[in-house]
Amino acid sequence: MRVALLIEYRGTGYAGWQTQNKQKTVQQTIEDALFAAAGKRVRLHASGRTDAGVHARGQVAHFDTDAEVPATAYAAMLNHLLPPDISVTASIAAPPDFHARKSARAKTYRYLIKVSPRYHALDWDTACQTVYPLDAAEMKRAAELFKGTHDFETFHSKGSTATTTVRTITAIEVQVAPDAITDGTRVTEGTLSVVVTADGFLYNMVRVIVAQLMEIGQHRKFAREIPTMFAARNRAVAKEIAPACGLYLERVDYGFDVFDAMSRKVD
Amino acid sequence: MRVALLIEYRGTGYAGWQTQNKQKTVQQTIEDALFAAAGKRVRLHASGRTDAGVHARGQVAHFDTDAEVPATAYAAMLNHLLPPDISVTASIAAPPDFHARKSARAKTYRYLIKVSPRYHALDWDTACQTVYPLDAAEMKRAAELFKGTHDFETFHSKGSTATTTVRTITAIEVQVAPDAITDGTRVTEGTLSVVVTADGFLYNMVRVIVAQLMEIGQHRKFAREIPTMFAARNRAVAKEIAPACGLYLERVDYGFDVFDAMSRKVD
Repeated sequence: MRVALLIEYRGTGYAGWQTQNKQKTVQQTIEDALFAAAGKRVRLHASGRTDAGVHARGQVAHFDTDAEVPATAYAAMLNHLLPPDISVTASIAAPPDFHARKSARAKTYRYLIKVSPRYHALDWDTACQTVYPLDAAEMKRAAELFKGTHDFETFHSKGSTATTTVRTITAIEVQVAPDAITDGTRVTEGTLSVVVTADGFLYNMVRVIVAQLMEIGQHRKFAREIPTMFAARNRAVAKEIAPACGLYLERVDYGFDVFDAMSRKVD
Repeated sequence: MRVALLIEYRGTGYAGWQTQNKQKTVQQTIEDALFAAAGKRVRLHASGRTDAGVHARGQVAHFDTDAEVPATAYAAMLNHLLPPDISVTASIAAPPDFHARKSARAKTYRYLIKVSPRYHALDWDTACQTVYPLDAAEMKRAAELFKGTHDFETFHSKGSTATTTVRTITAIEVQVAPDAITDGTRVTEGTLSVVVTADGFLYNMVRVIVAQLMEIGQHRKFAREIPTMFAARNRAVAKEIAPACGLYLERVDYGFDVFDAMSRKVD
């Protein structure tokens, strides 16, 4: 039986998703809980890795098992065994040809930015903090230029095994929290989110794009430079990378509703 | 010279404020940073202890020093030395008769409650989570009955050295986040805060009162029982206690603005 899990986690305490020798990872922690729950060692396959410190609201992973446990029972069983910073929102029997990574048609990430004249220890691991005001209107204009099908060579880090650097961003939105304070053009205190959906993401792609949007929001770079940056096909023109702690894997889309009513819409 | 610090922290990683043998505490961590910053061992005096897992947005503490460091320089110096989950929002020279605990006239706590049909790992240490819908209107009615000067014997835990259990709650408000979802009378998904200001708080007083308000919000207890509970002067009629992770020390008031523009209003 193939079982799919919908998983939420705070990534702070983990060396990312993927099992690595001797390090505490999200994958290893859930595999250990699965062993404790069903008495069988299984291997989890996620929609993709998340780096150390990156969070997830809607990670998806599957595993195969011959344990006689109903698929829908795994969520509650695992939640009794998992630490409080990892939870399984839903578990369900998946079609045998379902694959958490290969079947994925799109993914959505959210990146949280907190603007404040002061650093806030309360948000130390859940948002990227900046003291510099951000011009959200300019960031929105710049975000539009990332939409569509492009070669994202400039906007990723080496190290993945992707065969092409062409990806399609179907939606990218810069949202300003309703209680944000502005000085007319710039947010001086408050929270912004960048929500991006694409058919796939290169390594560090969201964090590099968000860092460029923040540079633009601070008027250190300009939206009009983006086409040139794309054309350069060179990371040297987009060196900045936003920190991991602001990044959330919100949702993975498979073209059908794997988890039915349990899957949530990102708004 | 007496120096006052305005301090923010996420309490998750600490065995509370107060220095205890071999445990990592907020007080010990800041005292160690002060030693590293100014080369002198000093003793910090806070407005009050916070328990393990309790957070602070506006804790106040003072210390005496003869180090030749301007009082206002401590904030930046300490923030370079402190871990990311503790920050000093402001430091200032305080009058010699200022005492972080004894001079305090009032304190404000916020208690965060997250209602959701599912547990959320992302909020594991920053809010109290409940799957049970809460009748916010009934909680607001009940909160009114805690206002004023009362003997709070019923609503605290033993263990403090307080000589009287009479306290005055000057303000208590149940706030519902604007994006909360209700089924007409009850919040079924969303965040509520209980914000309480009093001239002083007994040990666990906020957490016991909030737990009663949550019982009332779930219609397991009723607002009309509160006068009887006060009269009982017995914790046995108010056994429940809300978890530490939802509690934030928001502000300490001294009757004058110790930190000037740096101190923030709770709204």
